[in-house]
Amino acid sequence: MNLQSLSPSRQKLLEAAADVVRAKGYAATTVDDLCAAAGVTKGSFFHHFKSKEEMVLAAVAHWGSWTDGIFADAPYATAADPRDRLFGYLDFRRELLGHSVPQFTCLMGTLVQETYATHPEVRQACDRGMSSHVATLTRDIEAARRLYAPDADWSAESVGYFIQAVLQGSFIFAKAKQNAEIARGNLAHLRRYLEGLLGMEPVR
Amino acid sequence: MNLQSLSPSRQKLLEAAADVVRAKGYAATTVDDLCAAAGVTKGSFFHHFKSKEEMVLAAVAHWGSWTDGIFADAPYATAADPRDRLFGYLDFRRELLGHSVPQFTCLMGTLVQETYATHPEVRQACDRGMSSHVATLTRDIEAARRLYAPDADWSAESVGYFIQAVLQGSFIFAKAKQNAEIARGNLAHLRRYLEGLLGMEPVR
Repeated sequence: MNLQSLSPSRQKLLEAAADVVRAKGYAATTVDDLCAAAGVTKGSFFHHFKSKEEMVLAAVAHWGSWTDGIFADAPYATAADPRDRLFGYLDFRRELLGHSVPQFTCLMGTLVQETYATHPEVRQACDRGMSSHVATLTRDIEAARRLYAPDADWSAESVGYFIQAVLQGSFIFAKAKQNAEIARGNLAHLRRYLEGLLGMEPVR
Repeated sequence: MNLQSLSPSRQKLLEAAADVVRAKGYAATTVDDLCAAAGVTKGSFFHHFKSKEEMVLAAVAHWGSWTDGIFADAPYATAADPRDRLFGYLDFRRELLGHSVPQFTCLMGTLVQETYATHPEVRQACDRGMSSHVATLTRDIEAARRLYAPDADWSAESVGYFIQAVLQGSFIFAKAKQNAEIARGNLAHLRRYLEGLLGMEPVR
């Protein structure tokens, strides 16, 4: 990290970009929108970034580090049992649904949906970020599989992607319905499935 | 349906819109893009539609009828057992993944992801369309529940939304990775879950 990357106006732009892009999408977001949301001048924007695309790529990296930190610092992350960490992750995801729709949806999922065919670098950055989150989750799933389902014929990674697909699809329905009710129902189904995979008798 | 709605140029625009919007997103799609893809003039466009938004709303309705027809005409739809129809639907969805990414992804999921906060009418049209597809699926799930899981504590509708969320989330990963591998793995997990819900012993 160089000194420029610590600049307050750069930080403000990175944080504003996540909000503006999640609310309007990539193409509809203008440099003026980003400057207004961050409270910085256009001169400052172009001091830090050559283009909207370069800015958004930096915002994706920033988002990845920020969300990594949120999940790493969440209470469930220190549970001794990997299965407890996995279900703690689901509970934590459920808690996040208490925020507003723009706050709990995913910058990367939103971006890749819209730009995958037209902005290859954005697509790649989102793929890297989402897959890195899956990899973190996969470590706990694999540890839980070894303890509770050692003969399972499924891979921990495939379960990690399944969890993320349920979340990403749930965000779409939250946007369509303007509330998190379906997302909550989907997390309940997901939990029941994972309980079955990991040797817990579903109780509810 | 009035006579104007049967016009060939109108039909071409409705079909082109699904392809262009799924490839570029809503905001990046221009009226010129739509005319070029449909092979019609701008004069023809504005003869049929007042604006891009009005055109895309018509394309969402057209997409809904078109996909309704595809699922209604699929071989599984005539199976006598509702559980067979449900698993036939999943198999059919898996077959569709053999097409290219732009061809198997969803116009409505793509649109609502990007426009939910900025274009309320587009959001509502996508919500109606996606929920109508869920309702069709829910009828088979409910019939299968009564036969095979009459004491179940889950609702058929919640399972319908869960299935759609897995599909929508899978499309996002197909876009991110540029292939359907994760979507196939997700459908396998989904099938295993539904087999458990509907009293089948998972075999694989």
